[in-house]
Amino acid sequence: MTEPARAAADDVQQHLREVQELLARHRLVEDLVHRQEMPRHDLVENLVHKQNETRLRELLDRLHPADIAYILEALPREERLYVWNLVKAERDGEILIEVSDAIRESLIEAMDPAELRAAAQSLDTDELADLVPDLPAQVVEDVFQSLDVTEREHLRAAMSYPQDAVGALMNFDLVTVREDVSLEAVLRYLRRFEALPDHTDALFVVDRDSHLKGLLSLEALLLNDPERTVGEVMTRDGVISFEPQDNAREAAQAFERYDLISAPVVDGQGRVVGRLTVDDVVDFIREESEAELLAQAGLREGEDVFASVWDSVRNRWSWLAVNLVTAFIASRVIGLFEASIERLVALATLMPIVAGIGGNSGNQTITMIVRACATGQITPEAFPRLLKKELGVATINGLIWGGLLGVLAYALYGNPQLGLVMTAAMTLNLLLAASAGVTIPMLRIRLGRDPALGSSVMITALTDSGGFFIFLGLATLLLL
Amino acid sequence: MTEPARAAADDVQQHLREVQELLARHRLVEDLVHRQEMPRHDLVENLVHKQNETRLRELLDRLHPADIAYILEALPREERLYVWNLVKAERDGEILIEVSDAIRESLIEAMDPAELRAAAQSLDTDELADLVPDLPAQVVEDVFQSLDVTEREHLRAAMSYPQDAVGALMNFDLVTVREDVSLEAVLRYLRRFEALPDHTDALFVVDRDSHLKGLLSLEALLLNDPERTVGEVMTRDGVISFEPQDNAREAAQAFERYDLISAPVVDGQGRVVGRLTVDDVVDFIREESEAELLAQAGLREGEDVFASVWDSVRNRWSWLAVNLVTAFIASRVIGLFEASIERLVALATLMPIVAGIGGNSGNQTITMIVRACATGQITPEAFPRLLKKELGVATINGLIWGGLLGVLAYALYGNPQLGLVMTAAMTLNLLLAASAGVTIPMLRIRLGRDPALGSSVMITALTDSGGFFIFLGLATLLLL
Repeated sequence: MTEPARAAADDVQQHLREVQELLARHRLVEDLVHRQEMPRHDLVENLVHKQNETRLRELLDRLHPADIAYILEALPREERLYVWNLVKAERDGEILIEVSDAIRESLIEAMDPAELRAAAQSLDTDELADLVPDLPAQVVEDVFQSLDVTEREHLRAAMSYPQDAVGALMNFDLVTVREDVSLEAVLRYLRRFEALPDHTDALFVVDRDSHLKGLLSLEALLLNDPERTVGEVMTRDGVISFEPQDNAREAAQAFERYDLISAPVVDGQGRVVGRLTVDDVVDFIREESEAELLAQAGLREGEDVFASVWDSVRNRWSWLAVNLVTAFIASRVIGLFEASIERLVALATLMPIVAGIGGNSGNQTITMIVRACATGQITPEAFPRLLKKELGVATINGLIWGGLLGVLAYALYGNPQLGLVMTAAMTLNLLLAASAGVTIPMLRIRLGRDPALGSSVMITALTDSGGFFIFLGLATLLLL
Repeated sequence: MTEPARAAADDVQQHLREVQELLARHRLVEDLVHRQEMPRHDLVENLVHKQNETRLRELLDRLHPADIAYILEALPREERLYVWNLVKAERDGEILIEVSDAIRESLIEAMDPAELRAAAQSLDTDELADLVPDLPAQVVEDVFQSLDVTEREHLRAAMSYPQDAVGALMNFDLVTVREDVSLEAVLRYLRRFEALPDHTDALFVVDRDSHLKGLLSLEALLLNDPERTVGEVMTRDGVISFEPQDNAREAAQAFERYDLISAPVVDGQGRVVGRLTVDDVVDFIREESEAELLAQAGLREGEDVFASVWDSVRNRWSWLAVNLVTAFIASRVIGLFEASIERLVALATLMPIVAGIGGNSGNQTITMIVRACATGQITPEAFPRLLKKELGVATINGLIWGGLLGVLAYALYGNPQLGLVMTAAMTLNLLLAASAGVTIPMLRIRLGRDPALGSSVMITALTDSGGFFIFLGLATLLLL
C-alpha cells in the first residue's frame, strides 16, 4: 500500500460504530438464547458467537490504545466490560492510562489482582504513578517489589508530588549528552538507540553531576557541521526549565506561551531529574478546563455518563445540598415580608425577576474577574479600578433594564410607585452583584484561596437573598 | 554564564511587576506636572522621564513577544498604549499575533496605517491570515500587493476557511523529501537550511506531484544507518493527516489522542498543502474552553478586563436581555396564581426553592450530557438509557431533598398538606429538569446544532417557569 492511511477523528467514530454493530449482533444472539428460542449449546449460536468475537478481537488489536479507551468510555457498563475482556492482556496497562478516571475505576473493579499486576508492570514509572491511587494496596505492594532500585526511586518521586505539581506530570525518559563531544559523536551515539523517548525535540546537555548546562535541539544537531562540538551549538541562555514542585498550571501556561515540546525538570541544585513533555501538558490543560466546566455545574468530578444511578447521586449531592441551604435562606428572607406580600401580591410575582437578573449579571462579572485572576494578570492593586468599572456597568444596566421592567410593572398593575420600586430594586441589586463579583475573587486571592471555587454559588446566593430583601424591603417602606 | 536561565511562569509575573513599577514612577512625574508642582520642561522631570523610558524600552527588548503580550493584557488602557509605543516597531507584528482579540483591537486602533502595514509585512502568511480581519481594508490591500504569488495564494487559502477549520490553523512551512534518496543525502540537504520550521518532528515524504507518501521522523533519520533510503525507514501506514476543511475541534482531539507534534494537511487528491502543529492546536484548545466558560456566563467574547464601561455593556447585554425575557415569563406564570398566593402567602415564600433546586439539578444533567456529546461518545441511540438513568437520579433526589423540605415546610407553617405539596412539586420539577437535560442536547444534535449553545439558559428558563407552575398549580388544586 503506497497511500498512507487517513486516520483522523472521524475514524474513531467509525470504529465505535463497528464495535457497536458487533455488540448489537452479540446481544441479539444472547437474547435468543435467553428467551430459549435457541439452545445455549446450539452449533449455530456458537458459530455466530465465535465469529463475532473474533472480529471484535481483530478490530481491537488494530486500534490505538487511545481509540480503545474512547470506545470503552462510549459503551454502557455491561458492554464495556465485555469488550474489555476481549482486549489483549498486555495492552491493558496502556489503555488504563488513557481512559478517564471514572471509567478506569469500573475497569479495575472487573480485573483480578494477577491481571492488574501484569497491567501495572507493563507501564513506565511515571504512568504507573498515575495508576497507583486506583489500585488495591496488595497489587501496589507486589508491583513495587518487582521494580529495580532506580524505578522505585522514580515511582516514589513521582508519587510524592501533588497532582497539580510539575513533579506529578514529569517523566524519566531522557537522553543526556556532554558539552565537549562532537555532533558526529552524538549522531553515532544516537544510532545505538532503538528509539528516542517520545517527544524528544532536544537532548539535555549536562555535566558529570547531571547539572543542566543547556539544550541541544535536534534541529541544531541536524543543521550544524558534525565536526562542531555540542558546546558550540547548544542553547545556553533562556532555557526554560521547571522544578518538580512548580505549579503544573503555570508550567502549562509557559508551554503554551513559549510553544514548548519538552522541557527539563531540575532540582534545587540545577540537576536534571526529569522531563516534561507537551502531551502531558495538553492532557493537563484539557482536564483542568473540563474540571472547571463541571465544577461550575456542581459536578464533583467527570462522570461516567453510564454510571449507575447511585454513583451519580453521590457525585452530585453535595452541590444540591449547598444549593438547598442557600435557597432556604433566600426563602426565609421572603418569609420576613409575608405581611407585605399579603397586602400586595404583585410583589410575589415580580420578586423573582429582580433576583434572577442580579444573579445573572453577578455571574458575568465574577466569571470575567476569575478568568483574569487565573492568568495572574490582575493584581489586588487593580481592585478599585475594576470595581468602579463594574459599578458603572451595573448602573447603566440597572437603569435600562430596570427602567424597562418598571414600565412593564406599571403597565401590568397600574401602580406607578410599584414601577419605581422595581427600577430602584433592580439597580441596587445589580450594584450589589457587581460589588460582590469583584470583591469575592479579590478577597479569596488575598486569603490565598482559589478564586474560582464555588464562586458562582456564592454570588447567586447573595443576589437571590439580597434581591428579595432589597425589593421587598423597598416596597414595604415606600408602598405600604 | 554557564547556568541556563530559569525562565518559567513566575518570571513573566516578575516582569509585569517591573513594568508596573516603572509605570508608577512615570505616573508620579506626570501627576506632578499635571498639578503644576513641576514645570513641564523642567530638567529634572525630563531626566527622570527619559531614564524611566529607557529602562522600560530595555526591559521590553529583552522579553519574549508572548511575555510582552501578557503584560499588555494586564495593563489598563492608557498605560497599555504607553507601553505599546515603546515596543520596537519591528516586533509589533509578532506581538499582535500573541495578544487576545479584545486587546488586539485596542492596539490596532492606536496604530497608523504605515505602522500596521509594517507590522503585517513582518508576518508569515498563516499568521497574517489571523490578523487580516482586524485590519483596515486599505492596509490589507497594500499588504496583499506586497506579497509574491505563492504567498498571496497561501493567504487566500488560509482565509478561505472558517475559523474552526483545519485550514485556518495550518501553516505553510514544511520540508519535503523524496522516497528514493538516502538518509545521508537528507542529512546533507538539511545542513543547507538556516533553520527548520517550528515544531518539525518529521519530514513529509512526497512524490514529484506532492502526493504524500509517508513521514520521515527526525527520530528515524537519526537512529538509522545513513546508507538506507528514506523509503526503507519512513512511516507509511497509520500516518494521520487532515484535510483543510476538517473540523479543528476534531483535529485537536486527534492531536491529543495520538500525542502528535505536527501532521500533514492534504487536499482531496492526497497532495500536501500545509502542516498543522501542536502549538496552534494547544492555542485552539485553550481558546475553545475559554469561550465555553465565558459563554456559560453569557459573555459574548473574551472581555478586556480594563475595557470601557460601554464596551462591557455591549458584550453582556444580549444575555441579560434573554434572561429578562425568561424571568418575565416565569413571573407571568406566578401571576396566574396570584389568587392562591393571596389566600396562602407561604406559597410565595417557598416557591423559589422549588424553582432553584430544579434549575441546579437540570444544569448538572445538561452539562454532563453536553460534555459527553462534545466528544462524540454518546449517540442518539443511547438516549432511552440515559433518560432512564437521569429520571432515576431525579426521583431519588426529589424524594430525599423534597422530603426534607416538606418536613421543613410543615414545621414552619404547621400545615402537613403544604409539606406534601412541597415534596411532590420538588420531585416533579426534578423529573422535568432531568427529561429536559437529556432531551434538549439530543434534539439539538438531531437538528445538527451545537448542543452547548445556551443550554444553561434554556434549562433554567424551563425549570423556573415549570417549577412555579407545578408548585403553585398543585397547591391550588390540593390546598385551596
